[in-house]
This record gives sequence, C-alpha cells and structure tokens, in this order.
Amino acid sequence: MAKTVPVERFTLGICYYPEQWPESMWADDFKRMKEIGFSIIRVGEFAWNLFEPEEGVYQFDLFDRAIDLAHQYGLQVIIGTPTATPPAWMTQRYPEILNVNKEGVPYRHGNRRHYNYSSPIYRDYCAKITEAMARHYADYPGVVGWQIDNELNAEGDRFYSDADDASFRVWLEGKYGSLDALNAAWGTVFWNQSYSDWSQIHLPRGTVNPHQALDEKRFISDNCISFVQVQVDIIRKLAPNQWITTNGMFPHLDNHKMTEQLLDFYSYDSYPNFTSIWNDDDRDQPLLDRIYSNYLTKTRSISPNYTIMEQQAGPGGWVTFAQSTPQPGQIRLWTYQSIAHGADMLLYFRWRTATFGTEIYWHGINDYHNQPNRRVAEVAKVGSEMARIGEAIVGSRFAAEVAILHDYDNEWDGELDVWHGPLSRESVYSWSKAMQFNHVPHDYLYINENTSLSNLTRYKVLIYPHAAILTDETAELLKQYVAGGGKLIFGARTGYKDKQGHCRMAPFPGPVAELCGITVEEFTLLTSKSKVPGLRWTDGKDESVQATMFNDILLPANDRVETVAVYDSAYYEGKPALTRNAYGEGEAYYYGAAFSLDAANALIRRLGLQPAAADQLELPQQVEIAIREKGDRRFAFLLNYSGEPAVARLLEKAEDLLEGVQLQAGDLTIEPYGVRVLALN
Amino acid sequence: MAKTVPVERFTLGICYYPEQWPESMWADDFKRMKEIGFSIIRVGEFAWNLFEPEEGVYQFDLFDRAIDLAHQYGLQVIIGTPTATPPAWMTQRYPEILNVNKEGVPYRHGNRRHYNYSSPIYRDYCAKITEAMARHYADYPGVVGWQIDNELNAEGDRFYSDADDASFRVWLEGKYGSLDALNAAWGTVFWNQSYSDWSQIHLPRGTVNPHQALDEKRFISDNCISFVQVQVDIIRKLAPNQWITTNGMFPHLDNHKMTEQLLDFYSYDSYPNFTSIWNDDDRDQPLLDRIYSNYLTKTRSISPNYTIMEQQAGPGGWVTFAQSTPQPGQIRLWTYQSIAHGADMLLYFRWRTATFGTEIYWHGINDYHNQPNRRVAEVAKVGSEMARIGEAIVGSRFAAEVAILHDYDNEWDGELDVWHGPLSRESVYSWSKAMQFNHVPHDYLYINENTSLSNLTRYKVLIYPHAAILTDETAELLKQYVAGGGKLIFGARTGYKDKQGHCRMAPFPGPVAELCGITVEEFTLLTSKSKVPGLRWTDGKDESVQATMFNDILLPANDRVETVAVYDSAYYEGKPALTRNAYGEGEAYYYGAAFSLDAANALIRRLGLQPAAADQLELPQQVEIAIREKGDRRFAFLLNYSGEPAVARLLEKAEDLLEGVQLQAGDLTIEPYGVRVLALN
Amino acid sequence: MAKTVPVERFTLGICYYPEQWPESMWADDFKRMKEIGFSIIRVGEFAWNLFEPEEGVYQFDLFDRAIDLAHQYGLQVIIGTPTATPPAWMTQRYPEILNVNKEGVPYRHGNRRHYNYSSPIYRDYCAKITEAMARHYADYPGVVGWQIDNELNAEGDRFYSDADDASFRVWLEGKYGSLDALNAAWGTVFWNQSYSDWSQIHLPRGTVNPHQALDEKRFISDNCISFVQVQVDIIRKLAPNQWITTNGMFPHLDNHKMTEQLLDFYSYDSYPNFTSIWNDDDRDQPLLDRIYSNYLTKTRSISPNYTIMEQQAGPGGWVTFAQSTPQPGQIRLWTYQSIAHGADMLLYFRWRTATFGTEIYWHGINDYHNQPNRRVAEVAKVGSEMARIGEAIVGSRFAAEVAILHDYDNEWDGELDVWHGPLSRESVYSWSKAMQFNHVPHDYLYINENTSLSNLTRYKVLIYPHAAILTDETAELLKQYVAGGGKLIFGARTGYKDKQGHCRMAPFPGPVAELCGITVEEFTLLTSKSKVPGLRWTDGKDESVQATMFNDILLPANDRVETVAVYDSAYYEGKPALTRNAYGEGEAYYYGAAFSLDAANALIRRLGLQPAAADQLELPQQVEIAIREKGDRRFAFLLNYSGEPAVARLLEKAEDLLEGVQLQAGDLTIEPYGVRVLALN
Repeated sequence: MAKTVPVERFTLGICYYPEQWPESMWADDFKRMKEIGFSIIRVGEFAWNLFEPEEGVYQFDLFDRAIDLAHQYGLQVIIGTPTATPPAWMTQRYPEILNVNKEGVPYRHGNRRHYNYSSPIYRDYCAKITEAMARHYADYPGVVGWQIDNELNAEGDRFYSDADDASFRVWLEGKYGSLDALNAAWGTVFWNQSYSDWSQIHLPRGTVNPHQALDEKRFISDNCISFVQVQVDIIRKLAPNQWITTNGMFPHLDNHKMTEQLLDFYSYDSYPNFTSIWNDDDRDQPLLDRIYSNYLTKTRSISPNYTIMEQQAGPGGWVTFAQSTPQPGQIRLWTYQSIAHGADMLLYFRWRTATFGTEIYWHGINDYHNQPNRRVAEVAKVGSEMARIGEAIVGSRFAAEVAILHDYDNEWDGELDVWHGPLSRESVYSWSKAMQFNHVPHDYLYINENTSLSNLTRYKVLIYPHAAILTDETAELLKQYVAGGGKLIFGARTGYKDKQGHCRMAPFPGPVAELCGITVEEFTLLTSKSKVPGLRWTDGKDESVQATMFNDILLPANDRVETVAVYDSAYYEGKPALTRNAYGEGEAYYYGAAFSLDAANALIRRLGLQPAAADQLELPQQVEIAIREKGDRRFAFLLNYSGEPAVARLLEKAEDLLEGVQLQAGDLTIEPYGVRVLALN
Repeated sequence: MAKTVPVERFTLGICYYPEQWPESMWADDFKRMKEIGFSIIRVGEFAWNLFEPEEGVYQFDLFDRAIDLAHQYGLQVIIGTPTATPPAWMTQRYPEILNVNKEGVPYRHGNRRHYNYSSPIYRDYCAKITEAMARHYADYPGVVGWQIDNELNAEGDRFYSDADDASFRVWLEGKYGSLDALNAAWGTVFWNQSYSDWSQIHLPRGTVNPHQALDEKRFISDNCISFVQVQVDIIRKLAPNQWITTNGMFPHLDNHKMTEQLLDFYSYDSYPNFTSIWNDDDRDQPLLDRIYSNYLTKTRSISPNYTIMEQQAGPGGWVTFAQSTPQPGQIRLWTYQSIAHGADMLLYFRWRTATFGTEIYWHGINDYHNQPNRRVAEVAKVGSEMARIGEAIVGSRFAAEVAILHDYDNEWDGELDVWHGPLSRESVYSWSKAMQFNHVPHDYLYINENTSLSNLTRYKVLIYPHAAILTDETAELLKQYVAGGGKLIFGARTGYKDKQGHCRMAPFPGPVAELCGITVEEFTLLTSKSKVPGLRWTDGKDESVQATMFNDILLPANDRVETVAVYDSAYYEGKPALTRNAYGEGEAYYYGAAFSLDAANALIRRLGLQPAAADQLELPQQVEIAIREKGDRRFAFLLNYSGEPAVARLLEKAEDLLEGVQLQAGDLTIEPYGVRVLALN
Repeated sequence: MAKTVPVERFTLGICYYPEQWPESMWADDFKRMKEIGFSIIRVGEFAWNLFEPEEGVYQFDLFDRAIDLAHQYGLQVIIGTPTATPPAWMTQRYPEILNVNKEGVPYRHGNRRHYNYSSPIYRDYCAKITEAMARHYADYPGVVGWQIDNELNAEGDRFYSDADDASFRVWLEGKYGSLDALNAAWGTVFWNQSYSDWSQIHLPRGTVNPHQALDEKRFISDNCISFVQVQVDIIRKLAPNQWITTNGMFPHLDNHKMTEQLLDFYSYDSYPNFTSIWNDDDRDQPLLDRIYSNYLTKTRSISPNYTIMEQQAGPGGWVTFAQSTPQPGQIRLWTYQSIAHGADMLLYFRWRTATFGTEIYWHGINDYHNQPNRRVAEVAKVGSEMARIGEAIVGSRFAAEVAILHDYDNEWDGELDVWHGPLSRESVYSWSKAMQFNHVPHDYLYINENTSLSNLTRYKVLIYPHAAILTDETAELLKQYVAGGGKLIFGARTGYKDKQGHCRMAPFPGPVAELCGITVEEFTLLTSKSKVPGLRWTDGKDESVQATMFNDILLPANDRVETVAVYDSAYYEGKPALTRNAYGEGEAYYYGAAFSLDAANALIRRLGLQPAAADQLELPQQVEIAIREKGDRRFAFLLNYSGEPAVARLLEKAEDLLEGVQLQAGDLTIEPYGVRVLALN
C-alpha cells in the first residue's frame, strides 16, 4: 500500500514552540499564521521536561492551552514525541541511557540524541511518556497526527554503549543462531578473530572487519526501527484515529522498511540553503541547491506523496556554523521544489527565530523583532497560491520512466569500503545531474528481497551503478527485467560480493556475467596519482568521456556482444570499456568505470532518453521540470534555480495555474528563482 | 589609580635559572649581566621541588645563595611563585589536582598548567608554599617584587575536572541564586536542557549552549583571579614592601579586572619572532612582527607603563616547533617596540639557552657554549642606550587620539559564535593595520560596567567594530560620548544581544539604533562560497572597498541620516551600506560589513585622522611611530621593521637621543631593523 | 658473523593460508605452486585459535595435514608463531594484555598488535604456544624455519598500558640505578619535573621531555627484543635444526641488535606498489617505486643476504585504502629489485586473494576466481628464470664503495625534535636519490658502540648527514677513518648533543670541530616562511644549489681549511656554507644545510664518485644498476622502472643470464618495466 499523506488538499503549516514564547504572544501568532494560509502546526518534540518535569509526574496544561488556542484559530496540530532529548534528571539518574563515543566516553546532556536506542530503561521511559501523551491527546480537538522522536539518527548514527553491545549480541544471535555461523559469516578465521563466546563481541570500534561493519549498520537500522515501534504500538492502540510519521533521512536507517512496517507516510526536512556553505561549485556544472531534488527523489521512493515537516524558512545555522540568507524568491522556489517532487503537506521551520539557545541563527520566517519582513511575505504568497491550486494538485504523482537502483546493503558496505562506495556516490551524483540538466525525470528504486518484477517494469531504463553486493535473487530479477524488454546499465565492480560481503570465487560480474555478456579480465583502481584514461567509441563518434576512478577491462563472451567503447590509453589501451548485450527483448550495458557526468550524458544520448514533455516545452539547463500526474491531468512544475530570468519555449498552449492565465505557444519567461506551474494538455 | 611600574629609571634585566647551572658559573654570569647594563633578574617560577622537595619541608638555601650573590653584584631580584608546575609527588598523591581534557582524561606530570585552579587541596598547597616563600623573602636584601605563577591560562584555558565542575556550580549559585534563574538565563527550555538539580550542571563538554559557554569563560576568568588572590593576599600581608605582578596575556582571563583588583602593575611576555612561523605574509600588506604592537597596545590598556617580563632574546622553539633566528638588529628593534608602547621595565628571556629539557631551543642571549655572540652584543647596546636615556623616558605615556573599543563578553561569546566573533577579529586586525600604516597611534579601551564617560572623552574617535552584546548602560554611555562631540564607528551585527547573549526582540542595532539613525532591514552572512559586494560611494569618489564577511542592509530612519556608501552588487545593490548620523555635537557611523583594510583606510581618510607628529615628520609605511609624553617632553620612537634602510623626512630640527646629536630638518635614514628616538619640540 | 640466508640456491615461494580455504583445494594449490617454481611456503602466523582453540588445549591436525600435503608436493614450510593476534578468549579474560592508546583506552580485539609486549601473562601465553608448536614441529618433515610473530611494531609502535609503564620503570632502574641519575639524565630540574618515586614515572603521554622521549624509544626497542627472545630461546632449545627469522622493518625497533642477538637472518616485506598511493611525484625527479631500493639497502645492512618474506603480488589495500594494480612487468621488476639488493629467498604475498576479512583487496597472485591470470604468468616467468640462474647468484654480495651512516639514537631523537629530525629525513632521501640517478651503489652503515674501524674502512666515502647526537667515541672513530684516508661528509647540526640528548656547552660541531676545521658561528632554521639562500662556489663554477632547511654559518679555524662555497644571500651572504678540511690522509667536509638533491649531486661530482661498472656500461637515469659479486663473478642487475623501453650502452661484451645469450658491445634495450641480469667480465 502506498504510504501517502491522507489530506484532501495541499496542506501548508509551520513548526511552533509555544514553550519558548510568552503566552501573551500566542494569539497574535496563530492569527497571523492563519492569514498566511497555514492550517497546521507541529509542536512538542523537544519538550519532555514540560510534559514530565519530574519522574512519573505528567502535565499537559501548557500545551493544552496552546493547542486549544491554535485549534480555535483553525489550525490543526501535529505532536512530536519528545524522545530526542531526554531530561537531565533522567540521564543523571541512569547514565546507561547515554550513548558513548568510540573511546567509551559518554555523551553529555545539552545536545540531541545523546542517548542510545538500546537501553531497556530508556525504552521504558519512552513508552511511559508516549502512553501518557497518547492517552491525553488521542481524539484531542485539533490534534491530527504524531511525529515519532525527531530526525532519527541525526547527530549520532553510531552507538557504542554497553546497552548497544548487549542489544547487538541479541540481534546477532537472532540472525546467526550459533557462533559458528557468525564466525563463518564474518570470516573470523582471518587474523584470528574467531569468537568463542557471545560476550566477546562488540560493535566495531576502530576495527575493520567489513562483514562485522555491514552487520553493524543493519543492526543500527533494525534497532532504531524497534525503538520507534515501541512508540508506534502504543499510539496505534490508544489513538487509532491519528496518523503517525517521522521526519528526516539520516545514515544507518532503512527508512523504507521503517515506513512500510510502522508509519502512515514518510516526512522529510528540506534545507537546500546548506548549499550556501557546502555546495559543489568547484565542479564544472554545479548542482547547488538542485541537489535537494535528489534527496526529495529518495523521499518519494518511500512515500510517493510525502510531507515536508521542516522546510527552510531563512538562513540556517547554529552558533558554530552559518548559512547565508536565501535570496529573494529562493524560499518559495525551494517550497515548490518540495511540492514538484511529491509533497502534499509542508511545514516551514520555524515561525520565529529563537532568541536563545544553540539555534538563535536558525531563522524562522519571522525575525526576533517580529515585524513584517520579506520572508513572511514570500511564504504568504505560497499560501495564497496553494489556496488556489492546492486541491487540484493534491494526490498527483511524479512521473518518470527511468530509475536509479539503490540498496542499503551497498550503501552501508560502501561506507567503509573504498573499492566501491566512492564509485557509487560519484556515479549516482553524475547520473542525477545529467538527468537534471537533460530534463529527464527519474526515480530511485530501492531494491531488496521484497522487490518484485512489477516494481521494475514501470521503468524503461534502470541504472544500477556499482552493485558490489548482488544476490543471486536480485540478479535473477534483473535478468527477467531485461529479458522482458528493459534496458539496464551497470558500472564497474558489479556483482563480486555476496550478501555477507564475501567475494565470490567466480569471474566478475558474478551472477550478471551472462546477462552482460562479459567478464572482467583485469581491473585497476585509479588513485589520486593515476592518469585517467578516456574512451574511444567504436562507432567513431567524437565524444569525450573520462573513465574515472576504476577501470574494469572487459572480455566479451562472444561476438554478439557489442563493444561500444574501448579505453584510449594506459596499458589496457584498446580493450573494451563499455559493452552492450542484447538479452531477450532488452539490453544490458556494462561500463567498466565510475560514471562521470560526461559518461552519463553520453549514455543518455545513446539510449535516446527524451526530456519530459518534449512535445510541449523546450527548457534551458538552469530550469528543472517535474511532472505530477493525477488521472488525466498533468501538472508541469518549472523551477528556475538561477538569479537571472530564464526563457523557456512553450510549443503549444497551456494553462498557467499560479497566474490563472492561459498561455499561448511562444517564449515563456521565468523570473529569477521563479516558478511556473502549468497544466499541460 | 593607574597601575604602573614603580621605578625611577628604565630598568633592564633578564630571567635566570640558577638551579639549572653549576653554582661555579653564577658569579661570572652576574658579573657579565651587570656589564651589559642589567639591574634586575627574575628567578624561581619553576622550582617548587627545590623549595619543597617533600611535603611540608621547605628549603631556600640554593636560591638564597643565588640571590645573595646577585645582590652582591648589584642586581635586584623578582621571585616567581612556583605554582605553574606542581611537584610530581603532589599530583601523584592527589590526582584531583590535575586538570582533565574534554574526554575526562587527566593531564600528566611533565608539562605546565596540568593542574586546575579549583582544587581546594591545590589551593591549600599553593597558599602554604606562598606563605613560606613570602615569610622568607619579605624584606630579603635585593628582592623587590613577586610574579604570581607564570603565564596564567597558557597551555590550558579550558577546565573539565570534577573540582572545576564543583567550583562552577558554586559560582553559578552565587550568580543566579536559583535554578529557575539559571534555566531562564541559559534558555534551557530550548532542546529540553532544563536543570532540576545543581549537580546536573557541568562545564560544557562538546555542547553548544552559547549562554552556558559565555558563563564558562566568565567563570574561568573569575576562578583564575580568585586563585591568584590566594597568593596575593598572603604576600600583601607578609611582604607589604614588595610589589606584585604577573606576566602574559592568554585567553579566558580578564587581565584588566585581575590587575585592578590584585596587582601593582601588569607584565607581558613579548615574542615577536613567532611571526617567523605564524605570520600573515599571505596578505597583501602583512603586519608581520608589527602585530606585536597590537598586543603591547592591549597591555598598555591595563598598565599605561608596564613591564616586559620576557623579551625575545634569540630564536624560540621547543623540540616540537621552531622559529628562525632573529636577524641582526631585530632583538634590539623588538626591545624598542616594547619600550615605545609603554614599557618601563624589561627583562630578556633568558640568560643562557638550556642544555636540557623541552626548551633547549628557546635560545637565551647566551649560547650553550657561553662565548661572546651577536645577541649579547645587541642587548649590551640596548643596555648602554638605556643607561643614557632611561631616566628621561621613564614614566612617559603613550599618546593617542583614537581608540578601539573592546570587551571581554564579546570576545568570549565570539569564540564560539561564528556570526560575530570572526568579524571582530578581522576588523580589529584591519583597523590596527590601517592605523599602523597611516601612522595614527591608537589605544585599546576595554569597556565594562565601570567605564565612565571620562574614559571615553579622552579620544576624538572611537571604533567599536561588532559589539553584538551591547547593554543598555553601555549604549547610553556611547550616546553621551557622541552627543558631547565624539565620533563613533560601529560595524555589522551591533547591538542584537543582551548581557546574557539572548537576542533582543527589536530591530538591529537595538539600543544604538536611534544613535545611528538606522535599522537593519535585512542581512546576510557571506560564506566562503559567496561573491563579496563592494561599496559605491554616494559622493562619487572612486575608492575601492570590499564589504566583507557580513552585509547588513541599512534603512535610514529619516532624511537627515547620510548614506555615505551603498552596496554595488548582489540583490541588495544600491541599498545603504555605510551611514553617518549627526547626533548632538558628534556623529555616529554604521558600517554594515566587517572592516577590511581598505574600509579602515577609507574611513581614516574620511574622518581626517592625521599621522602622529605630522608637522615634524614624514614617514614611510615600513616605519612605526610611537610618541611617549611626559610633562612637556615628547619622545618619538621610530621603528624600521624592514631589512632595508628607511628614509624619513624631518620637517624641523630635533634631538636624536640615542645618538646624542641634534638633527636638522631633512632626510633621516633609519638603518635596517633600526631605531631612532627623537626628542621633539 | 654475517646473518645470511642458509640456502644452496635462490629459493622462491609464497605465503599460504590453508585455514582460509576448503581442504579440497589444497592439492591443486600445491601442485600449481610447484609448477610455477615455488619450493617454500609460509603458514600459520595468524592462526592461534586453530592451534589453541581454548586455553591450554593444543591441536595441530589441520596444519599437519596441510604441511604433510605441501611436503608431499615438494614444498618446504616456514611456520609463523601466531603471537601477532591473540585469541579473543585470552584478551577478554586478561584485558591487561591489551595495549591502550595515549588516552588510556584499550585497543580492541579484531585488529593486529592490539596487545602489549610487557604483560607477564601474555609473555607466558606466548611461551606456552611457542613451546607447544616447537615441540610439535621440531624436525617435522618439510619444516625448515620459523618466523617470530609478524611485522613487529607494525600497527602499533607506542605503548601505554600499565604493564608497559611497569616494564619501563624496571628498564629505567636497570639503566640508571637511582632516581638522582634519572633526574639528571632527563634534566627534570627544568619545569620542575623531578621524580621522587619510581612509581611517578610513565611512558610519555603528550609530554615533551626529549630525554624521556628518547629513552621511550630505546625501551620500546629493547622490550620488543626481549619479547622476541622468549620465543627464540624456546625454539633454539627445542628445534635446534630449524632457522629463525622475522619479517618487516617498523619504527622503534633496533633490527640490527635483534638480528645480531637472536636471529639467523633478517627478512623484509616489500610492497613497492604503495607508491601508487603515497609517492613523491610532486618532486622534480621522483623516486616512485625506486624508494624501495632504499629500504632494501637498509635490510641489507642487517643481513647482507636476506629473505623477502612478503613480496608484492598484485594490488594491495584493505577495505579502507587502495593501491592501483601493478602494470604488466612491475611484479617481476620488483622481484628483481629485491634480488638485486641481496635477497636469496623470496616469498610472494599471497597465493590467492582472501574472499573475506579486512584484506579482501590485498591481492594474491591468484584472483578470487582462481583462473589463470597475468600475475600468475608473470611470477611463473620469474620461477623459470630462477630455475636457471638461482644457483649462480645465491650468496653473492651487493658491492658499494659509499655508505650513508645512520644510527637509531638520532632517528628516534629526531622523531620528536624538529630541529634535526626533518633534516636527516630530507638529506638521506636526497643522497639516496642522487646516488640512484648517478648509478653509484651505496650501503647504509648503522653506527653504534660496537662499530669498529674496519666496518668503516670498507668504504671510500661516508656521509653522515645530521648527527645531532654524536658521542666522543664515535667522533674518535670517525677521526681515525678520515686520518686513514677516508672522505667524510657532515651536514648542519652535527655534534651538539651528547648520548642523553643534552646540548654540549661547546661550539658546534662539538667533538668533530677539529676534524672539520670549523666551528659554527651562528645558525638559523629556515621555516616555511623563509627565503632559502643558495650557494656561491669559491671556484667560480656555476652550479645551482639551494641551502635548504637550516643554515649553519661556518667559521674556519685556520687558513688551511678550504671554503668550498659560501651563502649567496641573506644577512650571512658571503659566509662559508661548505668547507673541506684535509685531515691525515683523508678529508672532512662540513655542509651547513640539509642536503637537497642538487647539493648531493654537486658533491658526487666534486668527490669524483663513479657509476658502477662505468667501464662496461652507460645507463640512462631511469635504470637502476646493482652489482652482486661472488668470488670473481660479477652480476649486474639492470632494472628499468619506466613504462617506456630504456636504451643502455654496453661497452664490452657480456653474458645475458636471463636470456642465456652472449651480448656484444652496443645498444642494449631494456623493455618497459624490464630487467636484465648480466654476467660482467
């Protein structure tokens, strides 16, 4: 069942912290929210002390008053369970609740996620506060849903406490049954690592057994999910009429599994302004804030229609780091970026900038001074626009014919393993960018043991850049996909590891060698000291592509396998670098390197992938297009990420939904950081 | 009362370690010291084991013999209390004396300042050794004064031991009275940080509550001062006829308060040769060793006439880092740099390079071989010069008409807070450099709750670059200053925080908005990825200035406020960047950015600030000028920091004090790294 | 007695891990090894759990079966004692076995060398397993020798456990006898470090007493040797007919002393492919993989004929770092590099790439797939070549007339001391490179208290770059060497420290001032900010040399001392930089700087050092030459390190041993990464 947001119309709102402001300000705040067009607020996710000021004493009056007043002003309320920040009295009394660093030093009160998910004591406290809150707020007027904790695995995605070790051992016993099985799976005969007692096993601290490290990530994910489940089970039972979600996408958590098993839908916190600090403008053609389209694409792979629980509302930063201020139009642009990719509910973070604490520079739409400002005006414009089109677009789905295959095992294994992880990160980035710039909408498809052929056949083309870990089952599925007419593209290092991360005693690419029609004769990793060879195309075309990071030297199995390109230098000059194998109704490509932007561009051309709405629109590179479809309606979101006006070309007439006008064919200007939403015919 | 050095004539001397050399060498050492022109030595500051080889057993014979012999050779003696390096037997017996690092790991014996200031046991040991020494050396022939500890807060300016936590809690209780007040001051409702018991509170370890972090620095400073006070109280009582000082300027210590409350005068350790490793020659116009004039200016703000307790005497370094050797003339040049800014007593560090230990490369004026060398000759030249002019210059005061305002709260808050701290550091550097190169002498004026209007009105111009924390009281004082005819210059980020570091719910610049005649409409921090806008001057002049680091977009309150310059690019192109507001008899400038060198230069020109002694001298950029005045006498120190001869122009006749000749108007050559001291008319 | 490999013919082999593969694969593995030309394997060094699966239960069946089968296929066996990786059950039961980091945090099971050498419990366990193995494998058919532990001090060359502190104190008591002597030696009067009880002393943790730090390294070395001795004594007694060695060269271990006292010969692990990651190609003329000739030269200084226990067999790397793949020919080239410098036995690492564990990317000659590949073919070529020439070359010795003097005290002292350590590293590198490129073979001569004049007089020229620590005894030996006709070259910073690292109270260069005929008048370290002066040659020749890193300004003692070059700039322009003093029959050079490549080149020319076999060969720079001599036979190894063919010139006829042909005078082409072995007349 698709995990989508249960709303009738697009829902706009904001995060609010009544506990941080004088109660006398609340009414004016809610009144102005409503005027802007907000209909929902999120509260409570860092307020444990207010709900339980001392152990076992629960109180809800402050939040009751705030929620009542909000409701009175027509606002719905999402309540966050406050488990991301346990009270000081609790961690002081039970230090085993704390997470510790790799050296064994406990984290301190004063941050977030300084606790571990494993402590039975903490889980018990969490259950009790959740139960008290769920009892109190089930069917409470205005309260529509729950956010579990906040940004799970943010600020901490590794765990080293004693409780975690204990929990890891239980998880391992459940998985392996015996130490013999574990020793075999972890290859402990290597370097004399064999365990003769479960108590000898720890989460890895500075050790580099890759199989143990992979299980570490799997455990952290499962452990986090079971931590969430404690709360979900309670809310489901006590407050069955309210929905449950959680926000954010952080390492070492299988958000797909968590959402599938526990949540009604998934939420994301979108802060594209981080690119004002950490962007990629050292590259030829930077993605800058468009990189967030990539994250939203991942979000959509979990919930086709999702919520943005926190949308950037101004410059962000703590006292210790700083973003610059979004330029005029960018906050609205980023809002539409979220919507274009599938948001049906969106809350800004936050109403007013905090005047104290770590985040005095994480600016809300209102400034400290609480006077009118540009950001409020920009958000109010979105509010009025959504009042007009929010009902039309809700529930429409993003359309794509291409998907990048992705899976958690390779992501987690590749974190430690520099022989394939960096390749995947580079190639996914290149493919995303190439498809962005070529206006080819794409999805992510996360593949796991539950993936079915029908999940794949929705796409004409699949790209699986560097699936080092590739099970026989997945290989079989991919063969069926190609046999049935699909096009599939692999990169270097495919298929040499099994599920445990052991290397197969077979020529690369292991279980897809037959599908690809090649084996890997030799290979070399390119270090920072290496000269990078290029490609020479066998059709003689002059298309410059660098074969970056890794070079597999391919050996076609037979004459029917087409060598599309060979290496143009190095000791393997002239050897096949890119091959194509017709297989059943489809075809499989194998590329022996990481995918540079040039390589992805070349493949897009050679595969004949077309821009979205190519019959109706011609777009410049700086504009992203996203199509959302509902029934026979197609909404085209055109997003101009540049500070200059962009000129698109409309090839046939269309309706401009935001302006409420009918457009004729011809030039179509999109203002700097501007947005158009067209209803296509 | 001015905290100045109580000497009748300029006093030259050196640091000496009798315990590190065979007693047979002492007499020759003292004899040669006297020949050079030294009249004072400092001893004892790292010799606790020699004073107290086992607990409670005090002995002074070695130092008595050394002091007696020195005195016999006509040398006075300063004694250092040895508390910077506790004996091994003490920290072994009472490990709670040790400071610990952020992870909780105790520091080890073998360094300096591996202890904490809080341990009651250590304070007791310090009191006892101080008492024993004070009893013994009070009125001891030759002993004139005391140095408390050594370079307080050097090697360690953060504290994490249990004793420190305990002491911090006592300090907080004294300050806040109740946990409610503390929770409010620290904004602990943010992220659920509220404390329900004093014992839950620690000095911050990896947490980023800015209000807690500010109190941490205030506590460290107060705690250090109270540590010093233990010793001072004892010496004042037992040795009332000897003066007390301490040396060095290190982080997290309010040297002004400490000197005001406890000391007779302040001392500084000047090592300009560090610029041979860590200089700023990556800048267009580097300050290099002239940066030490900046530190001496700060020293002078504490004691108008100060002591240099350690003056660079050769290449410095430990075994783990290294300076190059001062070039011929530089040791003398740096000596005069210290004198020009206000030194009335100066000791070199050290007599002879140690042949063992961590500092075998911290070269004294004598080499290991103890033969005549260039450095001894250079210092002897200073000795003979001071013999001639030391009585004339003593007690004269540095003259300046401009001051940079500075305060500890903003310095400490800005350490963590990247939204204003880096701006202040950059702007103070730029202003110092601009005034150096334009030959405009300046002071630092540290502002606090005791600052009076008369402290300010000594200056025609005050520059307060980025006073993020600005109390209403200080704002009122600044208004009075301007109303009375002063010129005052603010930079970006002024006035938005209160004393606790909370952000005011008012438009920037808060309490000086009326004084400046503007509010800040919008702002943006410039990250390393940002394009920096420039200024366009409304008077049409072509003067290139980059508006660096931060841009406040200003909104003049009315037509009477002059917009001096606007931004020349970015989305706020054409908006006011620099304004001037006539206020009473004076005027207030607000500049929306950090002050680059170009900005400071432009303002110096526009404010009409004149070079010192402009009627008498024309100076090239590489020469610093400092004027010391006493009664109607004016001594001009001309310091040539370059390795080439510098040619100044003397506009009227003057006396060359060092050469003892009368100079006529005309060209005046200053040799490479050379110095001239002129008596101006 | 020369510690050389006791073999009759060159012996080729490989490292093998039977425990990591199905027993069914063994026979095929051994069969193919034999076909390649291998005659020896190494096993067992990481297999403690297999030998002792629980405490006190010893079992050998798996290895017995493997060894029996190997022997059956004609392979000899080296057994590694498994003490580099203690079992989990052991470190869990006795955590005091673990080494801890500087912060006191114990290392974890799962790596190598996470234990300390000091724990009596661990030494006891090691003794027991060694005894059990020695009893079992003494005179076991096929077993010829032992490797103690594995790569001593790799992965950990600092020790901080309680056991280490205790052992350090015992070592210190043995060395100094009394605390007074220790306090004097460590100069603890400096900074009040004096110890009044042995228990106050620790291995240095973040402290920088240079004398303590030097003793730390001496202790670590002695402690490691005594750890090895426990095992050696047992094997000598129980298995007197098998030889003993160990492999690798890592910091803080006097391999010379260890080999002299305990081993039959020394072994090295050669991985030149590390230069694909960490090479020096940022230099003008990089050494790249030729740097390994330098390491082999050091190896040869321990054992004139040594074993390579692990020779690179493919790309190396862990999951966390990666080398690129050796290019065709490089594995063979590196094999001959090892042989050319003195190997008489060589084992590749490893037979087949591990399919699990940390080292799945440390490629053996066989791939995971176990099919024929390029690397196996390349190694088989070596096998067939050695079958032909292995008997001829065995026992022949590398010939050199020049040596670089080296000693552990300066190496260890210079690790911490930036005032001489970096100079030595730079100068040794420059000299090695200059001699490589000029085809002047050289040795390392490690000098210590047992070095005799006859060790020195084997060489015409000795270079002792920066002997900061220089005892009177060594100085005397050097004087005798020069007096007898030797040429000796010193660099800056010579002779100012005594054996304890105290600075001498005498002009530099202390005990060799008379030999050199100069003293150092002044000096300066050049920092990264300094302008580097050049040399001006007094004979007027135009030869460009930069006087890098440090400049001693020399003062000749008399007119007979020749000033060869002076500084060409800086304040000491024109002062002597390089001097030559005739002394007895020889001459001593003193150079006041570090030796750049240009300086070494200039000295090679001025000393008239000739290329090897200059009468018979002319070689291009990219080719290394090494001569091995036996009786009247001279074997010239020509190694082409470039990827292009190299053309040498043969001046008279010679025999090409590998090709088995007679060569006439004329051009001689060496293929890319190719090797020639010539029998010279």
